[in-house]
Amino acid sequence: MSELRKDPIVDRWVIISKARAARPQELSDRPQPRNASRVCPFCEGHEDATTPEVAAIRRAESLPDSTGWQVRVVPNKYPALDMSATTGFQVQGLNHSVPAVGVHEVIIESPRHLCTTTELTDAEYADVLRIYRQRLLELRNDSRLVAPLIFKNVGTAAGASIEHLHSQLTVLPIVPLELAAELRGAAVYAQAHGRCVYCQLLADELEQQIRMVEQTPNFVAFCPFASRMPLETWILPRQHQADFDSLADALVLELAQLTRSVTAKIESALDHPAYNYIIHTAPFDTSSFDHYHWHIEIIPRVTKTAGFEWGSGYFINPMPPEEAAALMRSKCPTG
Amino acid sequence: MSELRKDPIVDRWVIISKARAARPQELSDRPQPRNASRVCPFCEGHEDATTPEVAAIRRAESLPDSTGWQVRVVPNKYPALDMSATTGFQVQGLNHSVPAVGVHEVIIESPRHLCTTTELTDAEYADVLRIYRQRLLELRNDSRLVAPLIFKNVGTAAGASIEHLHSQLTVLPIVPLELAAELRGAAVYAQAHGRCVYCQLLADELEQQIRMVEQTPNFVAFCPFASRMPLETWILPRQHQADFDSLADALVLELAQLTRSVTAKIESALDHPAYNYIIHTAPFDTSSFDHYHWHIEIIPRVTKTAGFEWGSGYFINPMPPEEAAALMRSKCPTG
Repeated sequence: MSELRKDPIVDRWVIISKARAARPQELSDRPQPRNASRVCPFCEGHEDATTPEVAAIRRAESLPDSTGWQVRVVPNKYPALDMSATTGFQVQGLNHSVPAVGVHEVIIESPRHLCTTTELTDAEYADVLRIYRQRLLELRNDSRLVAPLIFKNVGTAAGASIEHLHSQLTVLPIVPLELAAELRGAAVYAQAHGRCVYCQLLADELEQQIRMVEQTPNFVAFCPFASRMPLETWILPRQHQADFDSLADALVLELAQLTRSVTAKIESALDHPAYNYIIHTAPFDTSSFDHYHWHIEIIPRVTKTAGFEWGSGYFINPMPPEEAAALMRSKCPTG
Repeated sequence: MSELRKDPIVDRWVIISKARAARPQELSDRPQPRNASRVCPFCEGHEDATTPEVAAIRRAESLPDSTGWQVRVVPNKYPALDMSATTGFQVQGLNHSVPAVGVHEVIIESPRHLCTTTELTDAEYADVLRIYRQRLLELRNDSRLVAPLIFKNVGTAAGASIEHLHSQLTVLPIVPLELAAELRGAAVYAQAHGRCVYCQLLADELEQQIRMVEQTPNFVAFCPFASRMPLETWILPRQHQADFDSLADALVLELAQLTRSVTAKIESALDHPAYNYIIHTAPFDTSSFDHYHWHIEIIPRVTKTAGFEWGSGYFINPMPPEEAAALMRSKCPTG
């Protein structure tokens, strides 16, 4: 059983998860051989190599855990969080811990052996976004579940352990550090100015245009002022909305198109780098987080985090976001 | 000129440094070829390949920037911070920035082409620690300089761009996130309990012994309760001390021996992984930070930070620190 442990001095939690140690690539900083020639557990026809699916988009006549799917959601085989953990806060002197109750699912994004989002069609990618939304709606009623986080790792430098295109959905029993910082920042701003800080940021970026990457009728993509990595890009809905799963069905395809287009620009500009993306959305108890604004952060992993970053919590970015945005604007959109 | 920029929502600063973009290995996540066969700018005899030294431990008769040295300190050729930057806080809407005034030095730890701390003798490593102390004492009188951070990157997975053994000393014009969190945690504890939280932690770890790695008369090495990485190890002086540069000369060799021994245990247990170490010490204005306790954090880089870590600020560690400490205790100390 995994355990969430708090650092005795700072507000930083770590999931101590022995289940993760069983992963074949654990405890090595060396690059792993590519999967293509081996049997891929995420390819169509190998459904028995994964845990049983909890959701899928598949042909009407097809059976769960058989062929005929477009997107599958399966529990992570090496979960960092799971619902079998018993709840209960433990304190021993300075040491605080809590069982790692939560959800850790894998979204397999294509039956074909694709490796990056841009290899999906817009319609296929829209299905992925739809199933994110579906799972969030299904999970938000469990009172043990507090804070969802959706993320994708593409490339070994971004932490991907399986090459086949997939993303992950976790739900934590506590609000994690990064989300808590955003919620706090948004709350402080809302109290002072009576407005969502992300709405203000959107207005500023739309006015200045210097960090703008791409705009659509309902979404805006720009490089943030304090980008941690070259070509880091955030995508926000223009309309204020705290929860990703409130996204209207009519807008899903537009968001898929934009996200895929931005990813293509990054891949074109940096020669197909490893990247992560993150969907930051409000905790499930949304009544308290009306001032929050969900968004996607795409983070190319082209500089390494070294002692400076670990010791300071700050980043060093060699490319100003104004230049990054100009570079991305010069790249053609995907067809 | 570099610039420190604050994220508009959270308290996270980024150094936007175009100087860093000139480094040959920037903007690629692919492994770089090893340096051994090429001319190494840090090897003895190549002193003209570095910036002029600002400090050194060298033979009495030898001249600066010539051979005859054991340790050299040179300004980083691609500095993220430098003293030529003008001071001044800038605010434009939500965007706050400040010129990246500060120090960014490289400590070249041996005239020979060594690649990890354990290849130094204890006496040689003691010289490295002595020159850290010397530089901190020299720099602490400049009122523009606020928060020092010493760190080492060994191996490409830990962000090393040059193989030859070196560490880096930065001094920032603001207290960075990680140090600020530790100072805050220590202040809150001191206010509630009238005691240093690190002194309490040491007492607890010495009593419990389950995460203990190695003890010497004046220092203690243990795996922290919420270790972010397998075999993460912290080294603390037993006596309460806020500043690394207050370290008594009589204890330098003992600290070098212990740090080298701990590093050797990590290298033995994990087959010579990439690693970082960090020296966390109080800001230069020490009058306000009596409750702080300097320490060394050694972080093997054997699991990758992926979307989960970037999105949550939390870590997933597959090895409980109790097992890590037992594994390290089973490894012989260095001779």
